[in-house]
Amino acid sequence: MTTHKQFKPVDEQLAYLRKGAAEIIREEDLRAKLDTSAKTGKPLRIKLGVDPTAPDLHLGHTVVLRKLKHFQDLGHTAIFLVGDFTAMVGDPTGQSETRPPLTREQVDANAKTYLEQVYKILSRENTEVRYNSEWLGKLTGHDMIRLCAHYRLARMLEREDFRSRLAGNLPISIHELLYPLLQAYDSVALESDVELGATEQKFNLLVGREIQREYGQPSQVALTMPILVGLDGQRKMSKSLGNYVGITEAPSAMFGKLMSLSDEMMWPYFDLVTDHTPEEVAALAAKVKSGSAHPMDVKMSLAREIIAGFHGAEAGEKAAAEFQRIFRDREAPEEMKEIVLKRLPMGISVRSKSGSTASSHMADGLSVGLEKWSKLLAYVGEASSASEAERLIKQGGFEVNGSLVKDPTSKVDLNQPNSYQVRVGKKKFLRIVVE
Amino acid sequence: MTTHKQFKPVDEQLAYLRKGAAEIIREEDLRAKLDTSAKTGKPLRIKLGVDPTAPDLHLGHTVVLRKLKHFQDLGHTAIFLVGDFTAMVGDPTGQSETRPPLTREQVDANAKTYLEQVYKILSRENTEVRYNSEWLGKLTGHDMIRLCAHYRLARMLEREDFRSRLAGNLPISIHELLYPLLQAYDSVALESDVELGATEQKFNLLVGREIQREYGQPSQVALTMPILVGLDGQRKMSKSLGNYVGITEAPSAMFGKLMSLSDEMMWPYFDLVTDHTPEEVAALAAKVKSGSAHPMDVKMSLAREIIAGFHGAEAGEKAAAEFQRIFRDREAPEEMKEIVLKRLPMGISVRSKSGSTASSHMADGLSVGLEKWSKLLAYVGEASSASEAERLIKQGGFEVNGSLVKDPTSKVDLNQPNSYQVRVGKKKFLRIVVE
Repeated sequence: MTTHKQFKPVDEQLAYLRKGAAEIIREEDLRAKLDTSAKTGKPLRIKLGVDPTAPDLHLGHTVVLRKLKHFQDLGHTAIFLVGDFTAMVGDPTGQSETRPPLTREQVDANAKTYLEQVYKILSRENTEVRYNSEWLGKLTGHDMIRLCAHYRLARMLEREDFRSRLAGNLPISIHELLYPLLQAYDSVALESDVELGATEQKFNLLVGREIQREYGQPSQVALTMPILVGLDGQRKMSKSLGNYVGITEAPSAMFGKLMSLSDEMMWPYFDLVTDHTPEEVAALAAKVKSGSAHPMDVKMSLAREIIAGFHGAEAGEKAAAEFQRIFRDREAPEEMKEIVLKRLPMGISVRSKSGSTASSHMADGLSVGLEKWSKLLAYVGEASSASEAERLIKQGGFEVNGSLVKDPTSKVDLNQPNSYQVRVGKKKFLRIVVE
Repeated sequence: MTTHKQFKPVDEQLAYLRKGAAEIIREEDLRAKLDTSAKTGKPLRIKLGVDPTAPDLHLGHTVVLRKLKHFQDLGHTAIFLVGDFTAMVGDPTGQSETRPPLTREQVDANAKTYLEQVYKILSRENTEVRYNSEWLGKLTGHDMIRLCAHYRLARMLEREDFRSRLAGNLPISIHELLYPLLQAYDSVALESDVELGATEQKFNLLVGREIQREYGQPSQVALTMPILVGLDGQRKMSKSLGNYVGITEAPSAMFGKLMSLSDEMMWPYFDLVTDHTPEEVAALAAKVKSGSAHPMDVKMSLAREIIAGFHGAEAGEKAAAEFQRIFRDREAPEEMKEIVLKRLPMGISVRSKSGSTASSHMADGLSVGLEKWSKLLAYVGEASSASEAERLIKQGGFEVNGSLVKDPTSKVDLNQPNSYQVRVGKKKFLRIVVE
């Protein structure tokens, strides 16, 4: 006898799943699937495909994982699909050294690294981990032709990157047209009810819908999640831009980084990297708006919660306490000194603002490029000279976004806009913004 | 010890192979390959691929086969490639009833029918018959991706039919892009030096050149042959147009049909469906031009020769003798009565011309469609009435293009231009031209 699973009311499930989503194609299909699932007691099958590279996950990566978790929390089946087949194909021409084919062992090692991080979000016991070589590795040439026969070229060329490359006379190899079809075939093999992806995956998820129909299956729902904007509040969170929070970073570093978020930016973080219900988030926002909650406190609770998710509740509390202890004697953050470095054609201008006083000058010795922190501190007037700043750094008196920086030669990238929360000496905090 | 094969001088080979060819890409490559072959004593590998449909071959089909024979005659290896792989795939969507997948047995039966006819041209002993399922049937999905990675979409879309369908918003399924690549891969598997095809195959043959290079092989030479124009002197020879000479037709029927060719049209036939060297053809043409040979006699020798190829020398002689016996008492062919049926918007006009006398009238009872021969004979004045014409036909007094027509209800297609050589009664010959 199978137990008839109990699900929450469909409306409640829908509201939770809709939270933070960029697009659900189509929401009425998702409702219908949830209805059926509730009636039959059969969980939905939710697919998330990833490349088996060995990633160092940051919060940006967790957005789709968290949506998968939400489905899992509601009792549905989370399928973590490792795309090992194409990884083992590598660059099929064999001409690129940057995409060498991976061996079975490499794929397994990468998947292990990946999963160790993933299980900080998903439940280890309830996740169905699959490898697409299981079915794609068995495809014959005949099967491939059959698969390709189910999709039209004109449709494929509607995909944004194909369209723009074709228009720009940039090469597209024919095998690239096969990958969306193989990804779609994964949905057939998995009989997925819903596929998750970032917004940039939308086209591929829709191909899955069509190919499933062609293979006589009901079409999956495509649920896309937006890109998480990084700490700078401007661009996609990414390691190379330096505007990220890694999920294995130390609690204190995570806390400092998250506290550097602007007040407005914390709301998308509530939506995309927490498990709060939409009602809870709305209630918090209302409190802040009415003045009954301080944005700083709400942001601290956000940081504490995120850290608790990756390091446990105790670590969250400890990081918050530490942060508060250091800040106890500081100026209120609204009054924190802010230094804005403006990148101009003739160099960099420095504008200092502290409370209502402001001043500005050109820093002729600074250039738009990589500059030493020590040099920068001297130029903005936080040290009497670069060598004094170096001494200060060596002695442990310098922190960036909550992380101690002890190398006196360490650099800051002035090439791109960014925002840093910096401690100089024991208690002096300031914000350095590169514009 | 292997015998070192002796080949004819390269210039002589080239001249013979060039005969009738539409294009050789590239001729210097072919020369180089012939040079190497002459030096090493190793024959070239010449590929001709065909669909394993069960065809009723006509002279149009023999043009590429004959070029393959020419290579074979020169000592090279003729490869007759049966494209059974895609035939067994059929319409991969399974939605079309017109292209059901063929079974192994059907393919074999079709190939047998095909080969029986082909061996009237090629030497049975020296032909390498291959089936591409031998290697395509073993391709994995991975191999297919690798193959597709070697070719760019933009190049593929240069193919005329893809380009025009894309421009005209007509659907192209993605699997259609795979077929030229599979055909190219056949060249890799066969290590072909030369691939033959009709002019419409040019694109596919060129893909073969590129894919061989990508797989580390020397590129094959692409040799295309023109389309054979049918007996009407206007359109591609085809069974549905009725302007064809089937290679299994009776000798007398073939003779009559071939004699209905216009004098100018016989030269392409010498080029494309005989084994005469270019010098021999040029010498014949010079004789006709100078008046030292009668075009009628040259045409008879052409017909005799073609028939001898398919039915043996004796049958050729017999058909020629019979034709001459019948024509012994006739008017000279230049003076043969000619009836031209002109298809006009308001109906059909009949113009009779015999020597220098001509007359014309509208035939109000005839329409642009299928009409009974008996009715037509009455309208053009060759019988006093349709029923008299029917009686004549039943009694064996009516022949079309050398074939006796005994069914009084048999019809003539006035929808399209055509030319018929007709016998009415015992000795009266006339030409009926539909314009």
